[in-house]
Amino acid sequence: MLSSMTLEQFTQALAAATPTPGGGSASAHAGAMAAALIQMTCDLTIGREAYRAHDEAVRAIRARSEGLRRDLLALVDRDAQAYDEVVRALRLPKETDAEKQTRSEALERANLFAIETPLATADACAALMGMAAELASKGNINVVSDVGTAALLAYAGLRGGILTVRINLKGDAGGARVAQLRERVRRLEVDSERLREEALTGAYVRSNGR
Amino acid sequence: MLSSMTLEQFTQALAAATPTPGGGSASAHAGAMAAALIQMTCDLTIGREAYRAHDEAVRAIRARSEGLRRDLLALVDRDAQAYDEVVRALRLPKETDAEKQTRSEALERANLFAIETPLATADACAALMGMAAELASKGNINVVSDVGTAALLAYAGLRGGILTVRINLKGDAGGARVAQLRERVRRLEVDSERLREEALTGAYVRSNGR
Repeated sequence: MLSSMTLEQFTQALAAATPTPGGGSASAHAGAMAAALIQMTCDLTIGREAYRAHDEAVRAIRARSEGLRRDLLALVDRDAQAYDEVVRALRLPKETDAEKQTRSEALERANLFAIETPLATADACAALMGMAAELASKGNINVVSDVGTAALLAYAGLRGGILTVRINLKGDAGGARVAQLRERVRRLEVDSERLREEALTGAYVRSNGR
Repeated sequence: MLSSMTLEQFTQALAAATPTPGGGSASAHAGAMAAALIQMTCDLTIGREAYRAHDEAVRAIRARSEGLRRDLLALVDRDAQAYDEVVRALRLPKETDAEKQTRSEALERANLFAIETPLATADACAALMGMAAELASKGNINVVSDVGTAALLAYAGLRGGILTVRINLKGDAGGARVAQLRERVRRLEVDSERLREEALTGAYVRSNGR
């Protein structure tokens, strides 16, 4: 399990010239760190007199962040498993017609899993970017640099997840489902640029950035 | 030591409402993951016939990436230590003149350390962004999504490091040194946007992004 590795072991595993773990797992871990920083910011905001007006909004963000942190940690492992399944399917025998059929079905399932996994990472990170953008104005000002960092990590997780989706879509022949997925990632990309601007600008203004 | 924690423990520590670890350590870890993905890409490029023209350039990147990965892992720990020192200095007694003098000197040293540490993270990540931008055109096309992810993680580490520098500069009275530091982070920010564009565009074109 990658999530049970130390930071040092995990970066060594990423650096190794093996198929997994790769950018998909790293993206999910960036997202998990973003969720953690958002959770911390909420806990340092909730119940403080100066932020009472935002208490309800921040509590709602807090409740979602903990689940997203767990989901994204699970996606660190799942992304590697998904790619390993593609490799396994590619190695299935393909001599008889029955073998070809079995292999082709296994490959289709594995490819779909290898697309949906980083897409789940991208979706979770898009949600975190929205939460960071909101906290940039509503969170405790003393940790606004942590909120900005959370937005940046979620942005890396979102766009990194999308790059992994794109490369796994590449082998796909096309068709309506692929066109739909491409449109979905394109929208996520556009949203990510807007939210990055919003969260960074908010964090900069409040951290006295010049 | 944070770098000896598991990914799960580290994200839990980030999520805790304690002064450290925070965005500075998370930024350094994002950078360490970027360095790892760059190292992997180099090892999957060097010695391959299709990339022979770039062999020398990629070997040079490979040599630097391993050191940067180690440096950034060390910065995960050092960032937390630096902030802890600021907190310790703030708690020193300040009743007598001698105590005030000792405290003020300790605080100045600690503040400088708390600025220089995330600045070292930002510098290392800026170097990684340049390497990722170069690999986006020269690296093995099969792992171009990993190169793009590396650029995004290095971007998060760079801008996150700078946010931490900025918030630690905030308490500073100003003067020539602060003006110089502000100018330096401003240049890093401008460079980071250019390199992000360059690396992402390169990765997108080669991963057949539409």
